[in-house]
Amino acid sequence: MTAKRIVILGGGFGGAFTAKYLRRCVDSEVTIELINDANYFVFQPLLPEVVAGIITASDAVTPLRVMLPGVKFRMAHAYGVDFAKQQVHVVQGTRRVPIQVAYDQLVIAVGQITNREMLPGFAEHSLTMRNLSDAYVLRNHVIQCLEHADVTEDEALKQRLLTFVVAGGGFSGIETIGELVEMIRRTLRYYPNIKPHEIRPILVQRYSRILPELPERLSEYARRKLERRGIEIKLNSGLVSATATSVQLDDGSAVEAGTIVSTIGNGPSELVRALDIELIRGKIPTNRYLNMAGHDNVWAVGDAALIALDDDAEQFAPPTAQFATAQAQRAAKNLAATLANQPLVPFTFRPKGALASIGHYSAVAEVFGVRVSGLLAWFMWRGFYILRLPGFATKVRVTLNWLFDYMLPRNIVQNRNDRLPATRFVRLKKGDVLFNAGQILDGFYMVVEGALESRIPDAVLGEDFIRVLRPGDHWGERALTEDWQTQGSLTAVEDSRVLILKRDDFTNLRTSLPVLDEYFKHIPEKLYAHPLRRDRGNQGVTR
Amino acid sequence: MTAKRIVILGGGFGGAFTAKYLRRCVDSEVTIELINDANYFVFQPLLPEVVAGIITASDAVTPLRVMLPGVKFRMAHAYGVDFAKQQVHVVQGTRRVPIQVAYDQLVIAVGQITNREMLPGFAEHSLTMRNLSDAYVLRNHVIQCLEHADVTEDEALKQRLLTFVVAGGGFSGIETIGELVEMIRRTLRYYPNIKPHEIRPILVQRYSRILPELPERLSEYARRKLERRGIEIKLNSGLVSATATSVQLDDGSAVEAGTIVSTIGNGPSELVRALDIELIRGKIPTNRYLNMAGHDNVWAVGDAALIALDDDAEQFAPPTAQFATAQAQRAAKNLAATLANQPLVPFTFRPKGALASIGHYSAVAEVFGVRVSGLLAWFMWRGFYILRLPGFATKVRVTLNWLFDYMLPRNIVQNRNDRLPATRFVRLKKGDVLFNAGQILDGFYMVVEGALESRIPDAVLGEDFIRVLRPGDHWGERALTEDWQTQGSLTAVEDSRVLILKRDDFTNLRTSLPVLDEYFKHIPEKLYAHPLRRDRGNQGVTR
Repeated sequence: MTAKRIVILGGGFGGAFTAKYLRRCVDSEVTIELINDANYFVFQPLLPEVVAGIITASDAVTPLRVMLPGVKFRMAHAYGVDFAKQQVHVVQGTRRVPIQVAYDQLVIAVGQITNREMLPGFAEHSLTMRNLSDAYVLRNHVIQCLEHADVTEDEALKQRLLTFVVAGGGFSGIETIGELVEMIRRTLRYYPNIKPHEIRPILVQRYSRILPELPERLSEYARRKLERRGIEIKLNSGLVSATATSVQLDDGSAVEAGTIVSTIGNGPSELVRALDIELIRGKIPTNRYLNMAGHDNVWAVGDAALIALDDDAEQFAPPTAQFATAQAQRAAKNLAATLANQPLVPFTFRPKGALASIGHYSAVAEVFGVRVSGLLAWFMWRGFYILRLPGFATKVRVTLNWLFDYMLPRNIVQNRNDRLPATRFVRLKKGDVLFNAGQILDGFYMVVEGALESRIPDAVLGEDFIRVLRPGDHWGERALTEDWQTQGSLTAVEDSRVLILKRDDFTNLRTSLPVLDEYFKHIPEKLYAHPLRRDRGNQGVTR
Repeated sequence: MTAKRIVILGGGFGGAFTAKYLRRCVDSEVTIELINDANYFVFQPLLPEVVAGIITASDAVTPLRVMLPGVKFRMAHAYGVDFAKQQVHVVQGTRRVPIQVAYDQLVIAVGQITNREMLPGFAEHSLTMRNLSDAYVLRNHVIQCLEHADVTEDEALKQRLLTFVVAGGGFSGIETIGELVEMIRRTLRYYPNIKPHEIRPILVQRYSRILPELPERLSEYARRKLERRGIEIKLNSGLVSATATSVQLDDGSAVEAGTIVSTIGNGPSELVRALDIELIRGKIPTNRYLNMAGHDNVWAVGDAALIALDDDAEQFAPPTAQFATAQAQRAAKNLAATLANQPLVPFTFRPKGALASIGHYSAVAEVFGVRVSGLLAWFMWRGFYILRLPGFATKVRVTLNWLFDYMLPRNIVQNRNDRLPATRFVRLKKGDVLFNAGQILDGFYMVVEGALESRIPDAVLGEDFIRVLRPGDHWGERALTEDWQTQGSLTAVEDSRVLILKRDDFTNLRTSLPVLDEYFKHIPEKLYAHPLRRDRGNQGVTR
């Protein structure tokens, strides 16, 4: 018979461990290829510690090539599957050449994404905690807030910069806010102008308790612990929207916050949405053998799959690392069985336990039915993960980092190499000020929704020149082109959405695209100048 | 008397150490404020090791707040100085509010920048080695090349991806290429499809030898060592330009390379250029007491300053960390003397020695006049830096990282959180292909200089539809808007420069700026369709 090709999509717990187990239980002429966007496996439970700066980013992840000897790795972006032709469509490399990767057996383990579209403003103004860059971005953002709060004279701004909102009371949300507070607490000594009581961390949980996956008593314990550490926990309350400077809650209240972290709203990834199958709850339905419905050479595991735990499909596997790993093991065995024409075995799993770190050397846990909390649980938590960390090198480094964390001061280096995209949307509530007179203009503003009022003081005439901008209108082109420091201000008079193009990009585009240059050359004077002085040109008006 | 305010601009060796020494020699009612863009001090000599993944990024740097107790730190961007009003102009925070910082005494220590404008194409296509993000970006870029080279079937592309050109044979260039080669050598085991002999590292040095700061014999030794490790060293040869895929040398030859690192072309920073004084060799001229010419309350140290070593100004201080640190010490003492109305002392310094790591556990050094090379020099090099690393925590971590480096495999994690800017310029030589038929279009192309030929095969008519694009013309708008996979190709028929706007940004702008949408809606059909089938619309033409 010809050599078989098994292709695995996704390098998370589901995909990476399927590859690992498969390599053990199929013989060597079977090629196993794993395709993933990033060249590393992310140990998600440790991401909050990356944010906190306890462990270095590269220790929360392991290179897939190192983790999976004997498995062919392809760093590429999979964007579609042709089940009939048995091909995966990928693009690879910086020149984005599309490639067809053929398979005999396919495992889909691409996980889910955090869908921030559900709540208005979240896509624009909330941070997530999915992967390594997320952890980086959040860490650098928090340090940015501390740096700025330490030097600003504006008390309202300072208070906003020191308010941190985390959405979601599950494991990810709790561990994130726990480590965040711990990190801030331990770095405050370097920010002499920030007092501990000025820090305001808020956790918003839709349900009646945090950590619903854990028994009531442990949730209770975790809540008390976190509250004692000054974390405001809002139970039974949901977020409805976010703006550049605040979040709105479903009780009608709003909170001014400089940081919004969203751990809620899981949804199907681009690839899963593109599949020519019917999703259930945004997931790939499988039978109990982990076969995708109707395709016995296609398998699905992990968060991307909807896996029934009983024949009448009443219970489904929860999206946790433990279950994904167990599914990987089952998928590997069933795949091997398929190649060997052996019977398949349905997936079953009894979780060993649940652990959640809540920061400050404290954790809550239930292991083999036993409930533990506090320092002991925290040690268990660390040991538990040390054992599960892939790779000796990582085990050593992470352990040492944890030791250092006692001995040494926290690192507050801000590795800011995450650039803003050229165009970004900003959401504003009525009354929000987008631009204050005297700020330095950093981009070109385009109104997409709502209405904003532009106000340019005119000392000579003694009255402001006011203009209302609506969708299609724009602002700032002259200040950018002629390099003025505009004295105008821009305020939302309705809930609005604005697209901002960064200064350099605006200049590049205007000079490279004649239609734009022409357009801006001939904008009627009335947009800029007060009616009473249009004849006199614009001197002194926006200068 | 009223309390004095000393403001220091720049957190490099010059600025940070001036602050450190000053805090010791002026009394406590004197405020010392240090202003820097980043909140950390960069230990530049270690950046190549960050690239190589030997030490983690955050260990090549130290938070300035930690390093400088008793010094007020402000993370902000200084963009000008008003010497008459004794104010520094800065913007701080994400909202970029301009602030005036008053001073009684000012120290300018902002260093230099790598001016890539001097050589055409370098700004667009070369990487630098100045700060932490540079090291990151280079590291991730190199890993990207290995990942792609390991899976591509295109031999020419593979060869280009595995060709690494470093411009400049000084310390930075040598240490960079040394560590780069070492890193690649040690990670190849994870890239089964890349053979060691396929790696092609090239060092281009304008002068007759590398490391001209060192005695001839050591340069010789270093060159032999590097060549034995497969590094091609081109002496007496300069680079004239770069494109997206190659570099051109002054002997008329060209090298196809996927990576170009520039360590040449130092120039004045934005702030120094903005100062209302006459620069000499792009630097701030000082007298022998480190006072800026004509301003006895303004001081300049480090690479930003031109500091005479003798009264008839024939010799000037070289731009090295050693000299900057010595200048910092002198500046601090002279500043203290000024406040106490004591006489000033001219700057003099005899360098203790010079060290250069050339990777692979080898280095060359001259310390107190003694020349050492090989493993011994390498150990000296490490010890030398360990001692000079600021902060115990960092000392410990770096030492451990160096130990790990023997025991443990190199890390090949690609922390890709460096996004491409939205608009980027691409430089092409006549004949270069910018876009190949069948690639997936990732952006909107605008011709800025030169001419490109667009070629769209027409199976039905059996002849290509050809169009020449000149400055002001653009390409790709329909494929982006209507989401086709264009079958056209785009080739430079003259040396050209193209501005690329990323796909998402193009869509955002087109939908937000009516003038653009209007414009693209009414582009004449002749730009897209072969004359013979314009009547029939465009079906099958670019689809």
